[in-house]
Amino acid sequence: MNNFVFISPTEFVFGKGTENKVGSLATKYGANKVLIVYGKGHAVKSGLLQRVEDSLMNEGIMCYKIGDIAPNPTDDKVYEGIEIARTYHVDFMIAVGGGSVIDTAKAIAAGVPYEGDFWDFFQGTARVKQALPIGVVLTIPAAGSEASGNSVITKRDGLHKLSIRTDRELRPKFSIMNPELTISLSPWQTACGIADMMSHIMERYFTNTTDVELTDRLCEGTLKAIIQEAHKVMLDPSNYEVRANIMWAATIAHNGLCGVGREEDWASHFLEHEVSAVYGVTHGAGLAVIQPAWLNWVSNHRPEKVAQFAERVWNVEKRKDLRMMTVEGVFAYKKFLKSIGLPTSFRELGIENPDIDKLVYKLHEDKGEFIGNYVQLDRRATREIYELAK
Amino acid sequence: MNNFVFISPTEFVFGKGTENKVGSLATKYGANKVLIVYGKGHAVKSGLLQRVEDSLMNEGIMCYKIGDIAPNPTDDKVYEGIEIARTYHVDFMIAVGGGSVIDTAKAIAAGVPYEGDFWDFFQGTARVKQALPIGVVLTIPAAGSEASGNSVITKRDGLHKLSIRTDRELRPKFSIMNPELTISLSPWQTACGIADMMSHIMERYFTNTTDVELTDRLCEGTLKAIIQEAHKVMLDPSNYEVRANIMWAATIAHNGLCGVGREEDWASHFLEHEVSAVYGVTHGAGLAVIQPAWLNWVSNHRPEKVAQFAERVWNVEKRKDLRMMTVEGVFAYKKFLKSIGLPTSFRELGIENPDIDKLVYKLHEDKGEFIGNYVQLDRRATREIYELAK
Repeated sequence: MNNFVFISPTEFVFGKGTENKVGSLATKYGANKVLIVYGKGHAVKSGLLQRVEDSLMNEGIMCYKIGDIAPNPTDDKVYEGIEIARTYHVDFMIAVGGGSVIDTAKAIAAGVPYEGDFWDFFQGTARVKQALPIGVVLTIPAAGSEASGNSVITKRDGLHKLSIRTDRELRPKFSIMNPELTISLSPWQTACGIADMMSHIMERYFTNTTDVELTDRLCEGTLKAIIQEAHKVMLDPSNYEVRANIMWAATIAHNGLCGVGREEDWASHFLEHEVSAVYGVTHGAGLAVIQPAWLNWVSNHRPEKVAQFAERVWNVEKRKDLRMMTVEGVFAYKKFLKSIGLPTSFRELGIENPDIDKLVYKLHEDKGEFIGNYVQLDRRATREIYELAK
Repeated sequence: MNNFVFISPTEFVFGKGTENKVGSLATKYGANKVLIVYGKGHAVKSGLLQRVEDSLMNEGIMCYKIGDIAPNPTDDKVYEGIEIARTYHVDFMIAVGGGSVIDTAKAIAAGVPYEGDFWDFFQGTARVKQALPIGVVLTIPAAGSEASGNSVITKRDGLHKLSIRTDRELRPKFSIMNPELTISLSPWQTACGIADMMSHIMERYFTNTTDVELTDRLCEGTLKAIIQEAHKVMLDPSNYEVRANIMWAATIAHNGLCGVGREEDWASHFLEHEVSAVYGVTHGAGLAVIQPAWLNWVSNHRPEKVAQFAERVWNVEKRKDLRMMTVEGVFAYKKFLKSIGLPTSFRELGIENPDIDKLVYKLHEDKGEFIGNYVQLDRRATREIYELAK
């Protein structure tokens, strides 16, 4: 186990009706003028945005807004938000939505007090030292951004999808999580969220670091809970209890707990980011295509941990032939993804002839020559994984 | 699942050599004059206390000290600490030790700015509204006090062992956790700590609240990891990796994560507190006697969750006869406790004829007529459990 620091300072306020606490929570954390960031209109149509504004204004907080944030959020909205926030001297960000909305709010929060171009942070030429504080009203359990100090933004010029990771600066002060708000999610949105949160755990689970039994068990337990609840939610999408378990699982998957004391992998996310940047697919659906292909590939090179994953998560019988265990484990994982309506190949994702040359080129341009930790991947390896995903 | 708020604001600094960061961490959190609380001399003999003082003084922090804190810590040391802290205008508490030392530091921290008697907090006639900030250098993984806002103190007059629970006020600002410091723990201390951390999970696991699949899985996974590492540590006590998993497990067991969204039970802890208050036994050893007896008793009245515990934690075969599953589960649990050298009856604990009248009387005097959540226990029930523990 490696040395580590763990802190989860975000106040998670979870349960029915909790969005009505946004005003009192924002006041508690010092908000006077907020910029509300939201998405493609669902928050408007459902009346949620109005409830959030009412709650804030009841506390005497001034509200400015920026909407229309799309999945795979882009830099133009960040520049626009920074401009608004500076003009009106906003001192607090409120994100009402899922990962794309929250990530945009975080990028704006980092950009406002910074003299240079916010993209510097994503390119790694500057570090976030201060940012506006952020509060979240979560509507889609998937990205885990409500619990992390991370953000992923795509630069439209060149379609570079890059991420930043901070320890504290971009962690939300509070995240309001009402599972009732997720009941209206479509089966597709629900399934894509499930693939994303499972991947967040797997990116941490597959590691070079040994002797991390406790974190392994936490990862496996969270995965098992997600799998059980995923089957249930497809049959009974308006079940509050099932939605509640799924919503909290997305947070546990990404608040750092499942990764303490170990190197993390993140190769599948990096491989996928190029796919969603180039083809505009939903991130979770892209992961459902890429992660099984990655698992298949690493099983050929280093089966041990994949065999443990097969046994403990997918109830594959333990035996000496680890490679056979991995085959059964990856099969069970793909079968599960299909059962909740997800694609597990480029073809099923609607991409008949992926431009693998371009994906490999962009990937290594963005991330360097080697990616991943469990197995280090070079250009030949990443090409093979994209091929396996066809 | 119930509505809940989860926050884990303590900065856990985990790994080799981390105790040397105590000075810089105390400075980061605003310390100028600290009162160091420590135990029965091991921290002195091992040189740890000196290293802590050196690190603090290198940062220009003034150090005062109070030592000789015993297991099942008592009110007299709290009064003494409050006096010292007030006299020298201490602004920060540093606990160097295990649960007893940390709980004493917390009680002092709450008492210093309070005009009345600190015991008011424990009796429930006053609430902690402010407290000196606290930092921890942990030496015994067991109580989980490094991660909680709780404290347990025994009033010598009448031997009342009572606890307080705060959301934030008594959470340590930082907790330094170096598993190397735990390698010198005796098998007995190690085993008692293991029984304590397992109990902290079980007190949360057994609940009336349904539909808490994710937290159940986190509880079960943590228990499975503890069981595996417990076997290893008895064979190989100087194995850093094993010690690291056990140390982090004690924190996970008690930082709130395993209890979110559900009512908790705590009957076994309350039953045990009377035993250690009256007979002065080690808390973890007392739990190893009480908790299996409690499990046996509740299995007769409500076997469902005990059967799940048997299946998922102890690999008992699933079948229709839940009561039989519980018998096998409790048997496996007791066998495990014995295998790491713990007593599982009053007799093995060295108490031939426990004064059950006295224990039952004191228990309900301290805690009221009914205790517990999974099954509510009245005087007849608690008497039967003490009898089962003979």
